[in-house]
Amino acid sequence: MSVELGGHIVVTGTNRGIGLELVRQLAEKTGVEAHIYACCREPEGTTAQALRELTLKHPGKITLIKLDLADEDSISAAVQTVGQRIGPDGLNLLINNAAVNKPDGMASLQNVRKSDMMDVFEVNVTGPFLLTKMFLPLLQRAVSRSKDKGDEMSCRRSAVINVSSLAGSIEKCPENFHFAHIYPYRTSKAALNMLTRCQAEDLSSQNILVMCIHPGWVRTDMGGEEAPLSSEDSVVGMLRVMSSLSRKHTGTLLDWEGNTIAW
Amino acid sequence: MSVELGGHIVVTGTNRGIGLELVRQLAEKTGVEAHIYACCREPEGTTAQALRELTLKHPGKITLIKLDLADEDSISAAVQTVGQRIGPDGLNLLINNAAVNKPDGMASLQNVRKSDMMDVFEVNVTGPFLLTKMFLPLLQRAVSRSKDKGDEMSCRRSAVINVSSLAGSIEKCPENFHFAHIYPYRTSKAALNMLTRCQAEDLSSQNILVMCIHPGWVRTDMGGEEAPLSSEDSVVGMLRVMSSLSRKHTGTLLDWEGNTIAW
Repeated sequence: MSVELGGHIVVTGTNRGIGLELVRQLAEKTGVEAHIYACCREPEGTTAQALRELTLKHPGKITLIKLDLADEDSISAAVQTVGQRIGPDGLNLLINNAAVNKPDGMASLQNVRKSDMMDVFEVNVTGPFLLTKMFLPLLQRAVSRSKDKGDEMSCRRSAVINVSSLAGSIEKCPENFHFAHIYPYRTSKAALNMLTRCQAEDLSSQNILVMCIHPGWVRTDMGGEEAPLSSEDSVVGMLRVMSSLSRKHTGTLLDWEGNTIAW
Repeated sequence: MSVELGGHIVVTGTNRGIGLELVRQLAEKTGVEAHIYACCREPEGTTAQALRELTLKHPGKITLIKLDLADEDSISAAVQTVGQRIGPDGLNLLINNAAVNKPDGMASLQNVRKSDMMDVFEVNVTGPFLLTKMFLPLLQRAVSRSKDKGDEMSCRRSAVINVSSLAGSIEKCPENFHFAHIYPYRTSKAALNMLTRCQAEDLSSQNILVMCIHPGWVRTDMGGEEAPLSSEDSVVGMLRVMSSLSRKHTGTLLDWEGNTIAW
């Protein structure tokens, strides 16, 4: 299956889990003109071995970018590096996938410390906030150079996709709270959903699409072994959803099958 | 008008605005057995002049507590001080009212810095998280000593009220975003709503009520002079709502008139 995505695509948190699978499928399913900037904290480190192998498998299609979302200078440097490589085309698609969950386990009221709350907010909310803000000139450039016309929106033209979570749905919280308390993660994802909604409003007149997506409960280091969904199936669904997005979807929260999730 | 509130009551952010008015009306409208712990950053400073005058007007009814929600040690010290004064009764009502909005003005995408996002989250979310967590033993004590029985919940028994905002409603964001972008404030209040919902679930079996309330758009330093509602009318409404709360209201977001606000 090919996807209706292409151009210059940035994905964060790509050394494992859903981020790695996003890069894998994007590399396979996009056309020759597409280029993927795969960001992770340590592209040279042992944790990025699978990502480096993937890069070798698709010569010239993937560029590894060093990015630590907790470090503002690192964000700035990554944006500059990507900008230099993209040149005049602009950035078509930014997928803010990177996220942390601290402390390990249930993260119940008693074992969550202030630093857990602050660290998780920093990476999961402030990180995407800054990255989108700094990439805005490149996203704007992509709008004007796109085949899409007028007020059309799409992930081929110019879009920001924030990977959120059902665990960030305030409405659904009572249904799943006792499954995993994860106070820092839940509050950060609710804040990310608000950030998405604000940026969607803010950038609507510029024809930049902003939405958030729940990847499902996926068998990753974060999701655990008992999760029902493989990274592969989740990403197949997410890329299908991204391919189908238009102006009416900006500011929404959808799952990997395209279903709307209540805030 | 008297209110159905009493016992030991902690209010944060009480040197001005809604917090000061909460202390004023609680001091006037509660019975002789009630005691109010009025927290602010600098009880001795010039910014707390009106609060100190209020304390002198109600001898023995109000205790000033030094509290800086950005400082974990300060939170710990405040909880210890309150605990020593409360003694065996426990804490009946914690009103997390203190909040900040940075930077001044619209807080649009371009002028919001990382430190604004982090500072606002620290005070508006991590502060209430830690304060509620540290007061939990005193809230639990109040449950068992209350006249309320079984699984009843009320603000007279044991409750946490988080002062939130319509600006924290993700659903309503498109309706009011262009009135004030305030990215840090909005994301923090969405996160506070999630925190409220989590703690409501978490403490439900212990019969501790947790909800959040929107005070309306009030003429305060934060709300501005053009706001339609006085602090007095807002607090009259909020205390009426708090007086009426029962188990069915735990985990909800209501405005000062008791109307439900979508997440």
